[in-house]
Amino acid sequence: MANDKKIKAGIVGGAGYTGGEMIRLLLNHPDVTISFVHSRSNAGNPLYAVHADLLGETEQLFTGELSNDIDVMFLCLGHGESKKFLEATDVAAHVKVIDLSQDFRLGETVKDRAFVYGLPEMQRELIKSAQNIANPGCFATGIQLGLLPLAKAGLLKEVHTTGITGSTGAGQSLQATSHFTWRANNISTYKVLNHQHLKEIRRSLQLLQPGYQGDVNFVPVRGDYPRGIWVTSYLQSDLSLEDAVKLYKDFYAGHPFTHVSDKQIDLKQVVNTNKCLIQLEKTGDKLVIHSIEDNLLKGASGQAVQNMNLMCGLEETAGLKLKSIVF
Amino acid sequence: MANDKKIKAGIVGGAGYTGGEMIRLLLNHPDVTISFVHSRSNAGNPLYAVHADLLGETEQLFTGELSNDIDVMFLCLGHGESKKFLEATDVAAHVKVIDLSQDFRLGETVKDRAFVYGLPEMQRELIKSAQNIANPGCFATGIQLGLLPLAKAGLLKEVHTTGITGSTGAGQSLQATSHFTWRANNISTYKVLNHQHLKEIRRSLQLLQPGYQGDVNFVPVRGDYPRGIWVTSYLQSDLSLEDAVKLYKDFYAGHPFTHVSDKQIDLKQVVNTNKCLIQLEKTGDKLVIHSIEDNLLKGASGQAVQNMNLMCGLEETAGLKLKSIVF
Amino acid sequence: MANDKKIKAGIVGGAGYTGGEMIRLLLNHPDVTISFVHSRSNAGNPLYAVHADLLGETEQLFTGELSNDIDVMFLCLGHGESKKFLEATDVAAHVKVIDLSQDFRLGETVKDRAFVYGLPEMQRELIKSAQNIANPGCFATGIQLGLLPLAKAGLLKEVHTTGITGSTGAGQSLQATSHFTWRANNISTYKVLNHQHLKEIRRSLQLLQPGYQGDVNFVPVRGDYPRGIWVTSYLQSDLSLEDAVKLYKDFYAGHPFTHVSDKQIDLKQVVNTNKCLIQLEKTGDKLVIHSIEDNLLKGASGQAVQNMNLMCGLEETAGLKLKSIVF
Amino acid sequence: MANDKKIKAGIVGGAGYTGGEMIRLLLNHPDVTISFVHSRSNAGNPLYAVHADLLGETEQLFTGELSNDIDVMFLCLGHGESKKFLEATDVAAHVKVIDLSQDFRLGETVKDRAFVYGLPEMQRELIKSAQNIANPGCFATGIQLGLLPLAKAGLLKEVHTTGITGSTGAGQSLQATSHFTWRANNISTYKVLNHQHLKEIRRSLQLLQPGYQGDVNFVPVRGDYPRGIWVTSYLQSDLSLEDAVKLYKDFYAGHPFTHVSDKQIDLKQVVNTNKCLIQLEKTGDKLVIHSIEDNLLKGASGQAVQNMNLMCGLEETAGLKLKSIVF
Repeated sequence: MANDKKIKAGIVGGAGYTGGEMIRLLLNHPDVTISFVHSRSNAGNPLYAVHADLLGETEQLFTGELSNDIDVMFLCLGHGESKKFLEATDVAAHVKVIDLSQDFRLGETVKDRAFVYGLPEMQRELIKSAQNIANPGCFATGIQLGLLPLAKAGLLKEVHTTGITGSTGAGQSLQATSHFTWRANNISTYKVLNHQHLKEIRRSLQLLQPGYQGDVNFVPVRGDYPRGIWVTSYLQSDLSLEDAVKLYKDFYAGHPFTHVSDKQIDLKQVVNTNKCLIQLEKTGDKLVIHSIEDNLLKGASGQAVQNMNLMCGLEETAGLKLKSIVF
Repeated sequence: MANDKKIKAGIVGGAGYTGGEMIRLLLNHPDVTISFVHSRSNAGNPLYAVHADLLGETEQLFTGELSNDIDVMFLCLGHGESKKFLEATDVAAHVKVIDLSQDFRLGETVKDRAFVYGLPEMQRELIKSAQNIANPGCFATGIQLGLLPLAKAGLLKEVHTTGITGSTGAGQSLQATSHFTWRANNISTYKVLNHQHLKEIRRSLQLLQPGYQGDVNFVPVRGDYPRGIWVTSYLQSDLSLEDAVKLYKDFYAGHPFTHVSDKQIDLKQVVNTNKCLIQLEKTGDKLVIHSIEDNLLKGASGQAVQNMNLMCGLEETAGLKLKSIVF
Repeated sequence: MANDKKIKAGIVGGAGYTGGEMIRLLLNHPDVTISFVHSRSNAGNPLYAVHADLLGETEQLFTGELSNDIDVMFLCLGHGESKKFLEATDVAAHVKVIDLSQDFRLGETVKDRAFVYGLPEMQRELIKSAQNIANPGCFATGIQLGLLPLAKAGLLKEVHTTGITGSTGAGQSLQATSHFTWRANNISTYKVLNHQHLKEIRRSLQLLQPGYQGDVNFVPVRGDYPRGIWVTSYLQSDLSLEDAVKLYKDFYAGHPFTHVSDKQIDLKQVVNTNKCLIQLEKTGDKLVIHSIEDNLLKGASGQAVQNMNLMCGLEETAGLKLKSIVF
Repeated sequence: MANDKKIKAGIVGGAGYTGGEMIRLLLNHPDVTISFVHSRSNAGNPLYAVHADLLGETEQLFTGELSNDIDVMFLCLGHGESKKFLEATDVAAHVKVIDLSQDFRLGETVKDRAFVYGLPEMQRELIKSAQNIANPGCFATGIQLGLLPLAKAGLLKEVHTTGITGSTGAGQSLQATSHFTWRANNISTYKVLNHQHLKEIRRSLQLLQPGYQGDVNFVPVRGDYPRGIWVTSYLQSDLSLEDAVKLYKDFYAGHPFTHVSDKQIDLKQVVNTNKCLIQLEKTGDKLVIHSIEDNLLKGASGQAVQNMNLMCGLEETAGLKLKSIVF
């Protein structure tokens, strides 16, 4: 693609974890140029001053200036900050906005902007024509991808879910639970049965299976590794394993990043990729669904690029054929 | 205690993980001497040739000979091997046997030996007068200590449990899932809803709450750290948090190793100790119980020493006041 | 590039770590197709049966057949096996061979094949016209990139080097030192002052600085992480820090993967990339050089692709713009 | 020992890492009672509010009050704070002071207090009669124990040393290099050839080998694990391996915590113990010495207890027979 035809992207909040991943992805995206990376506190510094791994890859600087001469804007701000930013900022109408916070995932609007929930495996066609995207939460993505086929088939009942997340899910702020000495070799839980992502999960599930009133009982666990989310959900089901696998494979056929594995999966199969892998088991009358993703990619910035690709008429996988870390 | 009054202990299967922990504990136990550490493949080698951390602490050798001039014998053999060993070996009647395998946990007997299930918080008095002990499994210990007070009160309903274990739980054999390159930063599950410890767990729960027919839905997770088990269980309950905490504190009063925490717990509080810590939460109508232990100590060799102490009339905590690793 | 113009690559020994990385890199290389991935023991199985992270990315199978209808052959075999393979196999004269073992790094030949040492920062022009490449060792790459500019300037004296490697450097065979339980949180050394890579290192240094007789005193350390090599070397030097930095920046100008950092570096800046980052310090009369790389990429398969790019007239960075793992 | 005969200890600065280890050790010390644990910011809180692993082991509280009704005072304060504390505080003359900071390691005094450098393997007799101890630094302990026998024999020449430390060495303050996401799987160096412990190391070495003017070239490395220090030193030496081993074994004979291993050592042999293990190798004309310890125990609080034992006429190993973590 000639350079003057490339999508022009602006990144707001480029100094955090998801902002850094946006930069890494877009730097190598064949159809995109990064017009600006906005960060108030880092304005004037090279990107590699904050994201040290970018040394040798780009001389681009953070800027404190915004511009409307872009096609798409990624908001990589803290929860609550995206809404404030859009209220306070004059973002031109032609600019597509992809927001990675939770500010617009439940149908909230700002000025005239309405947001489409950006989970491509659920509503790819809606996303293609959307002007604004509320990018799903990391746990929400992993849990939903494990349940959507059942919800679509009206087979959802009360769900029991364990989710284990890497430390990057908690961002880069220094806190007691992010101290290496504490977290190494350690396990703990937080917000048990009460995680904030449950709202967007329930909203999606009820959309697909109207009248669904079951609970998603979710135990979030802090894992002692940096990247990746493991989700195991189970529920009572009359489906045989074969029928369940067929249901899932049919549902995800044509979706380039979500695949059903016939073998046992492990988290590192997806780390540093935009993929979600799913594995099913049946024990007694319980159907067990494992789903895994990289929390910063399919669970955040990678999915944001996937949404951009869909909104801008690009190949869905453009810029997202990533080499896994694997070990 | 004068040396000639000390308990004489023999360890069979001393080259494995639980055998090594038995040696470490008994070497420093004020009331015990290790009469022999049996290992066919290592006979004649110093203990520190296998357990390299013991260098400088003992010059004792592994032996290929057994002796009945002991008071207590610890069997640290693989599952199925303990039964074979006792069938094939002439163990004198006066020798107390503490078996760490799963061979006798469901009421099995061998020759004239009947085994008491060695969970002191459940049946300390029975253990005191027992001649043979079936030492509980590591997951089984953690899960049961989280549920015993409810079962005793007849309040158990269907339980949903996640358990995360360190790699030592899988022993020292080399296998794909124990390769460092694979397991580091990785998460996976195994035997979902189908773990072999469920049998001994159900047996205990039904003993305490006769007629209990609910399931324990157990998701076992391989964690990416060496030591420790984290368990989170939840179930529907009418108890208030206050009443639940009181129930648990009352139940565990007088038990020196199991404590209820009023604050959030994390796994490293118990690593390298014989303790089990429990924390309760209430969300909606669900009671959540977290319980943590070191899988090799309270979940194996430490509990074996605790049982020996009870059987031999020693202080329950003798030799078990261990310094936690904490970080 | 049209598909029929693409470079056709064959991979021999595709089931190991470096073979897997070759596949991952070439799958996404814009100018290459993988003609075959040879593995005797896995013939007929899909690549993702061994490299589980490739699920959803390719349906290609391992093959037990070799073919000469390729442009380049990558040998990802154990040390000693490459020579045997080339002796026993009829590889057509037009096929360029890139060998990742140590079999040809010291000037060895086989049949009529002579091998060029494939360190592009040292001899890019030679590589461009080479028919066969001996791909450097992982430690050798990191150590040499830290010393080449000094050797070229004739300033090398006795060197003191520490190198720390991730577990992937030891391959996928199961052994005591690759057991997760042992290696997690552990440090050890091996082949101290006696590592096999010292031979190829001395050969390169003497080529650049004829008459250099100094030692490279190298302490290899097993790190407790999967990927990456950290090297710190120091030596007596009269250079000021400024002059040393200039020497290094001049030397590496125009080399797309090796960069000199003005700030403190840390290993994760390069993990999952083909880069080498270098940082210099001066303390007293000692010049300190830190150099870091991913042992499987710049230290193995990535450098092999870089060599292929040079040999085949492609852009040196083609297929190697990799997203770092960073956290 | 009857309770009224027990040594009464006070701990100042009990909320940090070394303070926590002091508490853990003294709680289980057979001949000591903890009279107070002083912490201004935590006064009135139970010890387990800060050191959560102590839950169930003690109900003792932090206090803001000091008392002179003690036999020994441990200062677990930051560097520079111990001197200020002793200047500002009226510590009775009969109170023995063991300072864990670096404030008095080079011969500094305060009021009338002179400090003996508390490395028992170097000067046990001096320590026995000392009133005040400057407890050695963690790296300093590991490096010196690797070199003392050579210095004593007058055989020291220029030394090249790599030291790798766990994250606990950097204390509990939150900083960029202690963030889990950054430090996990990462390696970096700091203060290369310029570490502050070099001063106390040189002082000891010159004391044993008067006139020694060689350098100790020390590369300190941040490891990605919480506990333990690995040191490898090498130097030119005419000693055969056999003679060197004999020299070291003779030197450390009678020292209960420092042992020479005939086999390869690894760091986890000593983690959570007060031991130092040493292994020697000879390659060409270089003698290589590996020495390992737990930085918080032999490198800090454990050695402080060892010093107290010596000063108070107790068994040197009292309270220090610790179970290693081993895995």
